[in-house]
Amino acid sequence: MSDGGSLPGERVVVCRIGHRPGRDERTTTHVGLTARALGADALWLEPAAAGRRATVEDITDRFGGPFEVSVPDDPIRRIGRFDGRVVHLTMYGEPVADVVPDIRSGQRERPLLVVVGGGKVPRQVYDHADHNVAVTSQPHSEIAALAVFLDRLFEGRELDRRFADADRRVIPQEAGKRVVDATDGGSPRSAETDADGNGNQAEES
Amino acid sequence: MSDGGSLPGERVVVCRIGHRPGRDERTTTHVGLTARALGADALWLEPAAAGRRATVEDITDRFGGPFEVSVPDDPIRRIGRFDGRVVHLTMYGEPVADVVPDIRSGQRERPLLVVVGGGKVPRQVYDHADHNVAVTSQPHSEIAALAVFLDRLFEGRELDRRFADADRRVIPQEAGKRVVDATDGGSPRSAETDADGNGNQAEES
Repeated sequence: MSDGGSLPGERVVVCRIGHRPGRDERTTTHVGLTARALGADALWLEPAAAGRRATVEDITDRFGGPFEVSVPDDPIRRIGRFDGRVVHLTMYGEPVADVVPDIRSGQRERPLLVVVGGGKVPRQVYDHADHNVAVTSQPHSEIAALAVFLDRLFEGRELDRRFADADRRVIPQEAGKRVVDATDGGSPRSAETDADGNGNQAEES
Repeated sequence: MSDGGSLPGERVVVCRIGHRPGRDERTTTHVGLTARALGADALWLEPAAAGRRATVEDITDRFGGPFEVSVPDDPIRRIGRFDGRVVHLTMYGEPVADVVPDIRSGQRERPLLVVVGGGKVPRQVYDHADHNVAVTSQPHSEIAALAVFLDRLFEGRELDRRFADADRRVIPQEAGKRVVDATDGGSPRSAETDADGNGNQAEES
């Protein structure tokens, strides 16, 4: 990425729109953490979702980056003015397998903005988008759609991304949990592990 | 699938554990809808999450199946007694790319149970699991992890799955939304479209 990550191509930004305060707090956090974990460089949140910024930044502080979170005043306008290609993930769009090769080659040369909705998405987003892309034509989850899209965009390379300036690093295990201190070359932090360990892929609680 | 779906291999069941009432209502719904959309045959919910059953079943009624939702009294015990292979998705597990080929060949012969956590996951789940699998060793979203796991398990074939007994079907579009009545060979239902159309991959609201 253009700002120092290890993935190919230009900057990838995820914009989460349609956040419904109260109802979407957790799902917006999941969108942000998924964007970071699966290779995006930055997240745009709406003003209504600004409260989720600290949670995502806290994970970046502890597990590494680079990953930037910003809160534009008018994300829809920012989407229309984005200097790069715009993809909107929607169950009504074209099949991801059909369009991702073209999107990937575009992202080799220009930044890519991936817009994911929550509630009803304004018509302008469909019109601003260079590609409306469906991860199945079934109603499911914008978090799931973003994950499959990024995994296919990066062809799995994002799974091996190394994050910079991490305080801790998880060491893969057949069973149980192992987290090491990434700041001193790897001493165990088992207490930390238990403190962190909601042993799943969800936001640490 | 063994019960009439078009995907290869035996039955795939997703079990969502660690549901925190109030906090996880939306994320548990997203887990269920993602399981259905991306090729699983069935969902197990904990008693604490039983309220999400109707939402997932409503989507199956309208967009097709087969997809079964059940609420076992003691999911952890059911996991330990599952007659097939058990995969637990956790950021502490082995890299998905390393283990999915073996899991896929196992699923050709025996049912597969995919356990996704929410809050803290009991130690027994790590021990019951034949594979603890990480979709990155980063904290993100169990919904995202499930989506990437299923897309890789089915090698993308799940994206073309046809659902039986659907009332409606979405027709992919470059822009905008097109939903047809699947019960009478495809007359448009544009009013329906607008009613449904939170034009994203999220649960219809």
